[in-house]
Amino acid sequence: GLVCVKNPHLDSMEEDVLYHLALGTKTHNLPAMFGDIKFVCVGGSPERMRAFAQLMQRELGLAGDGEELADICAGSDRYAMYRAGPVLSISHGMGIPSISIMLHELIKLLHHARCRDVTIIRMGTSGGLGVEAGSVVITDVAVDSSFKPRFEQVVLGDVVVRSTELDKDLAEELLACSKQIPDFPTLMGHTMCTYDFYEGQGRLDGALCSFSSEKKLEYLRRAYEAGVRNIEMESTAFAALCGLCGLRGES
Amino acid sequence: GLVCVKNPHLDSMEEDVLYHLALGTKTHNLPAMFGDIKFVCVGGSPERMRAFAQLMQRELGLAGDGEELADICAGSDRYAMYRAGPVLSISHGMGIPSISIMLHELIKLLHHARCRDVTIIRMGTSGGLGVEAGSVVITDVAVDSSFKPRFEQVVLGDVVVRSTELDKDLAEELLACSKQIPDFPTLMGHTMCTYDFYEGQGRLDGALCSFSSEKKLEYLRRAYEAGVRNIEMESTAFAALCGLCGLRGES
Repeated sequence: GLVCVKNPHLDSMEEDVLYHLALGTKTHNLPAMFGDIKFVCVGGSPERMRAFAQLMQRELGLAGDGEELADICAGSDRYAMYRAGPVLSISHGMGIPSISIMLHELIKLLHHARCRDVTIIRMGTSGGLGVEAGSVVITDVAVDSSFKPRFEQVVLGDVVVRSTELDKDLAEELLACSKQIPDFPTLMGHTMCTYDFYEGQGRLDGALCSFSSEKKLEYLRRAYEAGVRNIEMESTAFAALCGLCGLRGES
Repeated sequence: GLVCVKNPHLDSMEEDVLYHLALGTKTHNLPAMFGDIKFVCVGGSPERMRAFAQLMQRELGLAGDGEELADICAGSDRYAMYRAGPVLSISHGMGIPSISIMLHELIKLLHHARCRDVTIIRMGTSGGLGVEAGSVVITDVAVDSSFKPRFEQVVLGDVVVRSTELDKDLAEELLACSKQIPDFPTLMGHTMCTYDFYEGQGRLDGALCSFSSEKKLEYLRRAYEAGVRNIEMESTAFAALCGLCGLRGES
């Protein structure tokens, strides 16, 4: 289906400036630029998302070696965006607020471009929990730091709780694909999303640390028992926003 | 005084890799590189922090025009860092999680470099509230979306509440400086820090919006009455972390 926005105010706006992407409905022909996009892949680092677009360019057998791919968001240094055929590759920076700004503007972009049946996949580094180093964890549910499948969004000072379910079929499809690739241990599990990299993930090497190694291990053990297999910083917001707007999402 | 870390575990670490800055205690001579730093200026955008370092280079009468300034974090694309004499200029991306990672590693960097009497100033764009467009707001207190001077940090799943006081003398000094510059309306006020740019700041133009223009104005009016004069996305974490680690901070 169509990518939908859930905002009645947008219809009455003469122009929609996607400020942090340096794109807009009056300055760019969004249907022509993006109408045929079927896959959006997002990740934290701009360099990595450029490399991924280049890989897609080659894997899809498109003309060129990908070296020539230009940053579609070059007018901004907030995010970087590349396209290779039907695949859009976008960086989102680190943390929920950063990915949230990007997703709001991306979802509006796909809506304005009248894209249909778009699949979005977040790829990122994460801290593994009780899994072999180098493993790929496919997220079945994104959970918060209390291991609950929810995302809390403050709206006008009030907390709104949103579901963080991801697309189960897509997760199964990705797991099936992984079986064709040797040397990548791949598993499905819960992904825990935190607001902080150091204290929030139980690291002992930040500028602040008030807990012992034992307390850290106890927390991580509880997370593991709740089904958490990796920890990162964007998945709950990603799941909530994509889910609400009709994007088939997986992290 | 010295920039201090509040982490007993650091003493027993053989090496401290400041991963997101692409620096480390074994790979870099941090005291030689940074020991004489007196001012750290931080802001969201990498391009803007480069331009600011160039401006400092010229204003301080240092050799060169600043065009040659190299990104000290070039080995990473997470943050950008430039220095001009005693001034370090660093980007922090968007949102509390992103600035928090940078500050943890910056504070450890200044500690390892044995820096003394460091002043840190965050400069950023923000949404003004009942102030003339283009005004500069000097933050007296950073408040959360309930207008309270606090920062909530989740540590091993539990919420820890931290103070968001900034350096009052420094705020007064900056206000005094502003009087020497014409054409910049400058005032002091509370800064509200949110986890989201669209729904979290009452914007009507995100991919999601469930409130009316009237509800938005009512919330912003309550914020104004609580003393808020601008809204951004990093100040509470900035104030809390710098305050705890002995950095004289102002936003």
